[in-house]
Amino acid sequence: MANKENMRRLLDPKTIAFVGGSAMADAVIRCKKGGYTGDIWLVNPVKDQINGVKCYPSVKDLPSAPDATFIGTKRDTTIPVVKELNEIGAGGAVCYASGFAEMDKDGEKEGELKQQELLAAAGDLAILGPNCYGLLDYLHGSALWPVAHGGKMVEQGMAIITQSGNFAYNISMIDRSLPIAYMVSVGNQAQVDVAGLIDAFLEQPRVTAIGLHLEGLKNVPNFAAAAMRALEKGVPIVALKTGTSEIGAEMALSHTSSLAGSDDLYNALFERVGITRVTGPVPFVETLKIFACGAVPKGNRLVALASSGGDAGLIADYSDNQGIALPKLSEDVVKNISELLPAYANVANPLDFTTAIWGDRDALTQCMDNLFGDDYDFCLLPLDFPGEASGENPQCELIADVFQECCKKHNVPGAIASVFPELMQEKTRQHMHSIGVPALQGLEDAVTAIGKVMAYSQRRQEILSRQDESTQALCPADALSGDAIAMDEWDSKQWLQQYGLPVPAAKLVSADQVEQAAAELGCPVVVKMVSKDLPHKTEAGAVKVNIKTPAEAAAVAQDMVARISLSHPQVDTSRILVEKMSAAPVTELIVGIKREQGFGLSLVIGAGGILVELMKESVSLLLPSSRDAVRDAIKQLKVYKLIEGFRGKEAGDLEATVDAVMAVANFAVDNADKVLELDVNPLMVLPQGQGAVAVDALISKAQ
Amino acid sequence: MANKENMRRLLDPKTIAFVGGSAMADAVIRCKKGGYTGDIWLVNPVKDQINGVKCYPSVKDLPSAPDATFIGTKRDTTIPVVKELNEIGAGGAVCYASGFAEMDKDGEKEGELKQQELLAAAGDLAILGPNCYGLLDYLHGSALWPVAHGGKMVEQGMAIITQSGNFAYNISMIDRSLPIAYMVSVGNQAQVDVAGLIDAFLEQPRVTAIGLHLEGLKNVPNFAAAAMRALEKGVPIVALKTGTSEIGAEMALSHTSSLAGSDDLYNALFERVGITRVTGPVPFVETLKIFACGAVPKGNRLVALASSGGDAGLIADYSDNQGIALPKLSEDVVKNISELLPAYANVANPLDFTTAIWGDRDALTQCMDNLFGDDYDFCLLPLDFPGEASGENPQCELIADVFQECCKKHNVPGAIASVFPELMQEKTRQHMHSIGVPALQGLEDAVTAIGKVMAYSQRRQEILSRQDESTQALCPADALSGDAIAMDEWDSKQWLQQYGLPVPAAKLVSADQVEQAAAELGCPVVVKMVSKDLPHKTEAGAVKVNIKTPAEAAAVAQDMVARISLSHPQVDTSRILVEKMSAAPVTELIVGIKREQGFGLSLVIGAGGILVELMKESVSLLLPSSRDAVRDAIKQLKVYKLIEGFRGKEAGDLEATVDAVMAVANFAVDNADKVLELDVNPLMVLPQGQGAVAVDALISKAQ
Repeated sequence: MANKENMRRLLDPKTIAFVGGSAMADAVIRCKKGGYTGDIWLVNPVKDQINGVKCYPSVKDLPSAPDATFIGTKRDTTIPVVKELNEIGAGGAVCYASGFAEMDKDGEKEGELKQQELLAAAGDLAILGPNCYGLLDYLHGSALWPVAHGGKMVEQGMAIITQSGNFAYNISMIDRSLPIAYMVSVGNQAQVDVAGLIDAFLEQPRVTAIGLHLEGLKNVPNFAAAAMRALEKGVPIVALKTGTSEIGAEMALSHTSSLAGSDDLYNALFERVGITRVTGPVPFVETLKIFACGAVPKGNRLVALASSGGDAGLIADYSDNQGIALPKLSEDVVKNISELLPAYANVANPLDFTTAIWGDRDALTQCMDNLFGDDYDFCLLPLDFPGEASGENPQCELIADVFQECCKKHNVPGAIASVFPELMQEKTRQHMHSIGVPALQGLEDAVTAIGKVMAYSQRRQEILSRQDESTQALCPADALSGDAIAMDEWDSKQWLQQYGLPVPAAKLVSADQVEQAAAELGCPVVVKMVSKDLPHKTEAGAVKVNIKTPAEAAAVAQDMVARISLSHPQVDTSRILVEKMSAAPVTELIVGIKREQGFGLSLVIGAGGILVELMKESVSLLLPSSRDAVRDAIKQLKVYKLIEGFRGKEAGDLEATVDAVMAVANFAVDNADKVLELDVNPLMVLPQGQGAVAVDALISKAQ
Repeated sequence: MANKENMRRLLDPKTIAFVGGSAMADAVIRCKKGGYTGDIWLVNPVKDQINGVKCYPSVKDLPSAPDATFIGTKRDTTIPVVKELNEIGAGGAVCYASGFAEMDKDGEKEGELKQQELLAAAGDLAILGPNCYGLLDYLHGSALWPVAHGGKMVEQGMAIITQSGNFAYNISMIDRSLPIAYMVSVGNQAQVDVAGLIDAFLEQPRVTAIGLHLEGLKNVPNFAAAAMRALEKGVPIVALKTGTSEIGAEMALSHTSSLAGSDDLYNALFERVGITRVTGPVPFVETLKIFACGAVPKGNRLVALASSGGDAGLIADYSDNQGIALPKLSEDVVKNISELLPAYANVANPLDFTTAIWGDRDALTQCMDNLFGDDYDFCLLPLDFPGEASGENPQCELIADVFQECCKKHNVPGAIASVFPELMQEKTRQHMHSIGVPALQGLEDAVTAIGKVMAYSQRRQEILSRQDESTQALCPADALSGDAIAMDEWDSKQWLQQYGLPVPAAKLVSADQVEQAAAELGCPVVVKMVSKDLPHKTEAGAVKVNIKTPAEAAAVAQDMVARISLSHPQVDTSRILVEKMSAAPVTELIVGIKREQGFGLSLVIGAGGILVELMKESVSLLLPSSRDAVRDAIKQLKVYKLIEGFRGKEAGDLEATVDAVMAVANFAVDNADKVLELDVNPLMVLPQGQGAVAVDALISKAQ
């Protein structure tokens, strides 16, 4: 395992070595050009110099143990170099070679074994990869990187962690004045993984935000813990996770030998630890831009002003999609601004301030000063800066300048945004970023990014103030071995009842005792045949509800035994469940526990009954969870309208429902080493004061 | 009214005049620089020349009547110039001046009166505006435009019609190699409106697609008719309509004195006539790019190949969102491609072809030749072209070149797309566009655009093959005057029944005749009190369902009369409706008719009963409509699952339901001069073979 100090040396190296041939000599030259001022050495066992760069025959011959090394050799020479680096006390190394775990197909093991060999050779040395492009370091101007790339040194900025070297290269070439401190291509993550890198970046004070481009995660509990540390420290994480569609998930499985889990679980994970998820590369960089500039709003109240009604309308539409509030202007503000603008201007939020006061610093200042004086969390100014012949655009520059002054005066974060990404000049972007105003490119992406940043801010406050499930470690994510054992309804309910899950009053009897059991319970009752070999009771005709008399119950049971004995001869017909019929519910929910490799246990809460398939809605939470998180999840469901009391109908017992769901969650956490799957379906939500009751339950456990 | 010939002269002018001062002299100079080769004249009543451009004292003194004139004077001088231009037989003119209808607030009329004066002065002259920037014509290099702008002459391309001069300017400046033939800013549309421009562009063979940037529409039936002519001719229309949110709609109301209707109605309109709707300026131009290049797929089967698993995963995710199919590769193709690529490549669709065969023309050709050999409608290659130091990128150029060759060989349209919009070089874009391969910028926007183009193609085929409601003119869109009259349930049902809407067997009687009526109808029955003064019967306790005997019915009626006489003393309690109770439905729908200024009548079909508010789902159709369109609308509802037969339950009578909805639609069309609003709620969808029945109905009509 790499120690922390070695990770630190890798991220802030005083000395760098490259191991390999002419490509590595080129890398040395690029590194010098990039502004790196420490010592850079080239190691090659057979040459004295390559392209004018002196070569050392081995890493042992270097003047001192390098803080950072890029090993550009093939697989089988990489392992001994790693071993030597560890022996001489080097810091960290990038292992570029492929041919490790990523190449194994269909149960092959060769690559995995080589990877274990590499890991053993590394010892205390921090290693990135193998099968990766390495590390671009724009704080110190170094590039532990095998090929050309773009980008400039910065004072501070974001760290981007990606599973694709190609993605890193493209990001380094884009025209967005993105302040990037580090870019890392992680490859197979044999030793240093995404969680380890997050922790390492949290130690770097000049890293202001972290961007993750993920295909999957290897160890979700570790990752979640690192993400929580980032949240606590206030370093926002933005994630672009591909594979949301089924085919996309297959794609993600194919690469870098990592696992893509179900997309709902990624959403549950990101929500739990306050990670901002984006849909693509462009929203990824634009969202990071706001975070890296430190322009983080406290709430979701936006004020915007545009020079055209069309742009103002677009902002309103996009804000609506993002859950951004556009509070109305106060009467005073409307009055003051109306005096400044022509009669046809629409004095509202978003404001269409027209082009009438363009070029008039006083009028622009009065307009924005008034506008930002109401209580807002963020200000937005869409403005396209097409370069005229001279590349100058004094009209736009004036408006942007007044904008930043007024934001500053009212102490509200704000951003400017071009409607078309390319209509924002580099000079403007760099100036704006230097004063903490993000210069966003593309209005739709800009408003989406602002919405995401607002949501981050609110979610962070919520998590930190609750100090509940998010701060707890996730359940272990190991797979359970052995075949699954299906438990029958009675046994499942008995077990769950111990954790406080309410189930109907019931008796497990033989057919000839049904009449007495029904009499004791009191009608109406339900009669079911219970057998682990009969999981689909309804389809098998093994359930009869709403039985009005004990005599009828007895008859039903006898008929059931006779029928099932014929249709399902393998089923033991001796266990008959007689249950008190549940009161009519306000609505039904399903509550389930799922187990997924890497993620451990998750809790799924959804609309039940006929609405399960009509609404197809559910919310997933990773375990352990909390009452607050469960209540929020239930409130996210559309059927919550029924629980609230729908069209004057009786409201449901929300708190009892939360209790019932928590009973399932607590059961699962306590039995994480046994539970494979669990379904409570339906959980009846009864009217307020009457509780909730699990009418059916099935557990599948490991042997 | 402008005649067609004058519109044609405006769009293809042999002579151009500008009227005004030094700004117009600059416009003359810009026009010459832009490549326009016809005569250009400047008109100014007081100067001999301005900035070296000779002035004519009036339009009457020009060498001949100009085909196109830009009038850059103020409002009150504009009107006499327009009058003179008409008198001398000029073609068309742009009226730049503001101060017309757009300035009227709160019932003011001054601007509107001036606008009518302008319209009268124009006579046969085609006029754009007033209150507009005019016309950029990149086919002939002319610019009837008051200020600087970007863009280059083209051989053919799209025509963009916008209500914002600012939007037009920004589009002219973007870096997307967009082939634009015309750009028009329409202003107040006093005479030539959006529909008139669409018709004019359909006469121009070099216009390959039409883009609309709309805040609202003045005359929806005319617009729909013009859009249908474009659909028939195969000239695709892309619309960016702002104001989808409530606040956005308020914004749209504020500008260019036009009307923003409900967003659902715009969706219904666009769907009806095959217009492609986009969400923002960037998707607007990218979608138009595909259309303008003529790369229109026949169906929705996409094949894609990327150099990274991340990009392939994004394409899969975005395709899933857009309803794009990614059919699996055939076994042969998988086999052949697997032989070309390294073991770690994922041979699937989308294909991650890795970077292993970059630079190898033969391998690339074999790979794509195999890949495109299966049956696909469109090919997509994401590829970022960051310019290296030299601005060249031979690796990327080779891949793009092989791609277009293989598309051509297999006769499948295709596009290349950069993941980041700015990572696509101009040289590449222009080359690709010249051979009909769109060079898209931004992967998410690219896949969205491809999905939109696929949907257009499928919808066009559907409309043209059906030849049904879309080809019919819309109902008149006039508002009806006078107060609304609410009809009671009995009268409403009687009227609707004449058009074939099934209603329950019923008798309208007085309270003392209820017993006999119930006996004649046969129990169970429903008893309701009917009065136009009692629209909310349920809340008033004026409905009782499922009455089992005639005697009970009589008692219910007497109790109802007694209660209502006390609680609603103004209500006439003499009309009691006794109805045969409907059978239990498979599901309930609501069917409504709405009337909206500009749009005329629309039909709304939604989930009924408790699901109305839970699902909040409805589909709107403009009238007249057709059985096919109504059936499609019902199938779009989630509750259609219940009508199909849900979880083994009985299916509903779909065709009878369509009949019932058509009865409502036909009623509304026939009575378009009277109906204000109508609600059938619920329409009970009975089991297959048992029909559908309207259990309640209310009509509101004009006096």
